Amino acid sequence: MDQPWKQRSRPERFERRVEFGDYEATRVFLERLNQLSERLDQYPDISFGRTYVNLTVRPQEGQALGEAEQSLIAAIDELL
Amino acid sequence: MDQPWKQRSRPERFERRVEFGDYEATRVFLERLNQLSERLDQYPDISFGRTYVNLTVRPQEGQALGEAEQSLIAAIDELL
Repeated sequence: MDQPWKQRSRPERFERRVEFGDYEATRVFLERLNQLSERLDQYPDISFGRTYVNLTVRPQEGQALGEAEQSLIAAIDELL
Repeated sequence: MDQPWKQRSRPERFERRVEFGDYEATRVFLERLNQLSERLDQYPDISFGRTYVNLTVRPQEGQALGEAEQSLIAAIDELL
């Protein structure tokens, strides 16, 4: 399976772009993502317009990407 | 009063950054913004993390910034 997340450096982060057919689908995803963030207490940076969402998952200040971020991106993938 | 929006070019757009004290305040603003977007059928590009939101308002494809975008940014300011 394709790995939809790209790992980037300087600063270290995971990024993924998701496209939706309409605004309603975008909004539903953002709501589910919001619930997930609150449950995990992890907040990706999110950039979105009417039919797309760009996600950036960064490590905690001063740390490297690790298990917490891997779990978060896996949980986000499950929403999709 | 300060004009909190910056008008930028190439491509032409309005931008504003808003900071919040906590995630709950960010979330409440995003929900109100969502309702506004649906009511006006205008969707700014939104970029946010736990305690900030960056907004970009662009004109319709092939057009210049005009009254529709001025109304949208005024309506967003009223939410704040």
